[in-house]
Amino acid sequence: MSIETALTEIEALLGKRLSRAEAEREAHGRTETWYPPAPPDAVAWPESTEEVSRILAICNAHGCPVIGYGAGTSLEGHTSAVAGGLTLDFGRMNRLITVSPGDMTATVQPGLTREELNRELRTTGLFFSVDPGANASLGGMAATRASGTTAVRYGTIRDNILALEVVLADGRVIRTGTRARKSASGYDLTALFLGSEGTLGIITELTLRLHGIPEAVSAAVCAFETIHDAVETVVAVSQAGIPVARIEFLDGETVRAVNAYSGTDLPEKPHLFVEFHGSPAGVAEDASRFGELAADFGASDIRTATRTEERTALWKARHHAYWACLGLRPGATAVVTDVCVPISRLAEAVEETRADIAASTIPGPILGHVGDGNFHSALLIEPGNEAELAEAKRLAARMAERALRLGGTVTGEHGIGLGKRQYMQAEHGAAWGVMGEIKRSLDPNGILNPGKLVPGN
Amino acid sequence: MSIETALTEIEALLGKRLSRAEAEREAHGRTETWYPPAPPDAVAWPESTEEVSRILAICNAHGCPVIGYGAGTSLEGHTSAVAGGLTLDFGRMNRLITVSPGDMTATVQPGLTREELNRELRTTGLFFSVDPGANASLGGMAATRASGTTAVRYGTIRDNILALEVVLADGRVIRTGTRARKSASGYDLTALFLGSEGTLGIITELTLRLHGIPEAVSAAVCAFETIHDAVETVVAVSQAGIPVARIEFLDGETVRAVNAYSGTDLPEKPHLFVEFHGSPAGVAEDASRFGELAADFGASDIRTATRTEERTALWKARHHAYWACLGLRPGATAVVTDVCVPISRLAEAVEETRADIAASTIPGPILGHVGDGNFHSALLIEPGNEAELAEAKRLAARMAERALRLGGTVTGEHGIGLGKRQYMQAEHGAAWGVMGEIKRSLDPNGILNPGKLVPGN
Repeated sequence: MSIETALTEIEALLGKRLSRAEAEREAHGRTETWYPPAPPDAVAWPESTEEVSRILAICNAHGCPVIGYGAGTSLEGHTSAVAGGLTLDFGRMNRLITVSPGDMTATVQPGLTREELNRELRTTGLFFSVDPGANASLGGMAATRASGTTAVRYGTIRDNILALEVVLADGRVIRTGTRARKSASGYDLTALFLGSEGTLGIITELTLRLHGIPEAVSAAVCAFETIHDAVETVVAVSQAGIPVARIEFLDGETVRAVNAYSGTDLPEKPHLFVEFHGSPAGVAEDASRFGELAADFGASDIRTATRTEERTALWKARHHAYWACLGLRPGATAVVTDVCVPISRLAEAVEETRADIAASTIPGPILGHVGDGNFHSALLIEPGNEAELAEAKRLAARMAERALRLGGTVTGEHGIGLGKRQYMQAEHGAAWGVMGEIKRSLDPNGILNPGKLVPGN
Repeated sequence: MSIETALTEIEALLGKRLSRAEAEREAHGRTETWYPPAPPDAVAWPESTEEVSRILAICNAHGCPVIGYGAGTSLEGHTSAVAGGLTLDFGRMNRLITVSPGDMTATVQPGLTREELNRELRTTGLFFSVDPGANASLGGMAATRASGTTAVRYGTIRDNILALEVVLADGRVIRTGTRARKSASGYDLTALFLGSEGTLGIITELTLRLHGIPEAVSAAVCAFETIHDAVETVVAVSQAGIPVARIEFLDGETVRAVNAYSGTDLPEKPHLFVEFHGSPAGVAEDASRFGELAADFGASDIRTATRTEERTALWKARHHAYWACLGLRPGATAVVTDVCVPISRLAEAVEETRADIAASTIPGPILGHVGDGNFHSALLIEPGNEAELAEAKRLAARMAERALRLGGTVTGEHGIGLGKRQYMQAEHGAAWGVMGEIKRSLDPNGILNPGKLVPGN
């Protein structure tokens, strides 16, 4: 049993599509955040499910770790090869296989990114709604149970995947789900693989649910005097049942970062960015009801955007917020947090977090998909500064504990990866052990993304 | 290891809340459909999670089968005690524990029925949307991944459960999920237990997502000349993105049954029953767009119902359709089918099924939640008539094969139970084996609902 034996056999199969080059190994061992690099021993570019199956059978026989890799946009070190082994890069399995406009579904390979998919769908009148900001691969989004700005209206990826093809640790290929919109046929294996972070199987095909591009879209931006007022507006909107398509919170510090990075001129106060989808009359009604509620909470400087270019600029500014925040402290890296709480506890959670960061020595702008109760802070630290890293981890741990105390979860959408595993016992108790039992039943040799998610993995 | 030893120990724990009386055993071994009775050796009425945990630990130690039981409304023999053992009746664990209006959630015990829950919620302005017709228990609905008439708008129970408390085979108590609206924290165990039909664990508490009672509701009924026209209207409505809250198909035979049973006077033609939820203006807009589309497909006799009593009468008639269909053939029992196909193949699926039944010797009215691609036939047979049972099974098998051929599933919402297990291999292939591996990892002694869902169980 050795990694080397496995790689030699796989090289015979793939030829030059297996690389041990330093540059490739490093590129695939890097993360977007503060985690130290952890390169694999080699990188492979499979071109078919059949190849993935053969690769996994070889790795399983020789105990070689296997890590799936899409666009590398994970924020929690999901693709770090902490035990070495082989990274499977899905860059050559990135086709849109079919679109069924009648069923509003598309079947894709895992390496296709969400922006590429939406470009290809442009003539169909349909779109794929899940939008985590980054141009992530669809396989990666599925593996981490991604969501993002539109989840409040269209659901997370869990609500937008009908079926998967998955290669198991031993090379068996299975299909989960069907193209029907619902099913009560046996265990929901589709849901089990979504968010399993490559520890139960490697996703090689996905059937996605699409939505009709809305007839009318409008967006609005408004400023509030306090975080409390902004967040309570979100709670009121949720309770009033106003069908917002997006509702994003940015604190004053994030707005300052966005202004500097994207050239906007918003007042440096807490903001909500909202969007409405529907018929022209429906969108106007929604926007007007939202405006009234926001005004009740003292919203000022309400700007609306109905033209496509204005909206695009707005959401581009929002999507670049992570990079904008990094720009607040040139040269910094970030510990990115990602908690989600019941909506009734959201104001409390955000305000306590704001106060906690304010009392610390490092900057930490706060922003989030508040319609779901989900928010983030990018805790900006100097690379290599151990004291700052320790302080950021302390703040992140307090956020996680706060989320659990308020009935929430330590990760709304970024997943566990390396960074959240320390909170799994606190969040799940004995259920974490059950995850381990399921893992061992499907991957008894522990080759799939070792070091991630489950206990003792 | 024996059932008898387990029952003696459990009797010491529960006293009179364990019964071996013939009447109780028979009542819990009966089904709503054609399956022969399969009574358990005893019935227990636990009153707490702690008791369920102790009961399961005893049963696990002695190899005694355990079957969860809610309202007994399963159509697929889920609660049949085919290997004897103990039925756990949740009639005494039927409390609404808490409602959180701010979060729009409720936490309930498994024995509470959906109608009781909605009665208790009446003053909150909120409702629980999942509506399978029968007044099922919420634990049973979770265990079978129920859906029903409103799934097209509000999703199935999978979309409306945030968290569960589950007792595992060995008595361990776990909690899955949180009260936050979304999470990317580890394997989605909530989804895994939904639809596991009591074979992986016993659900003892559920946190449900609620929805605001819509400001305005309107309903409409219309008749079509052909099944094709009715079903193509549904497809067009889906593609146009009209947000119907319900859209139900009834064929001419079902309408005849409903007229006779509920005293309605609808023309004996294929019908759609639809409902719209929203603001007064939105509902009017939706109804008018629906009317235009239906007229394009030749709809006649469009009747609308905006008054509560009219709507209640309409949906009561729809909900009693199963009993109405049984009334078409006095003394009959039914083999109830439940397929779900991609919406683009729905017309084909319904028409082929109609022709198949028409060519057979037994009646089989067709109806369904067609907005999801889901439809049923109640194949009416004489109890004890083996030739008719064989013919009904042949028709049901052809429906299942047709659904699979068209890219669908053998059960949209009724689940596997005893009746659909024979199709699991065809639908899931190697994935059925994976279900078995998960089952064995969590219930190595096979005490949980033996004979159901997984291979070799």
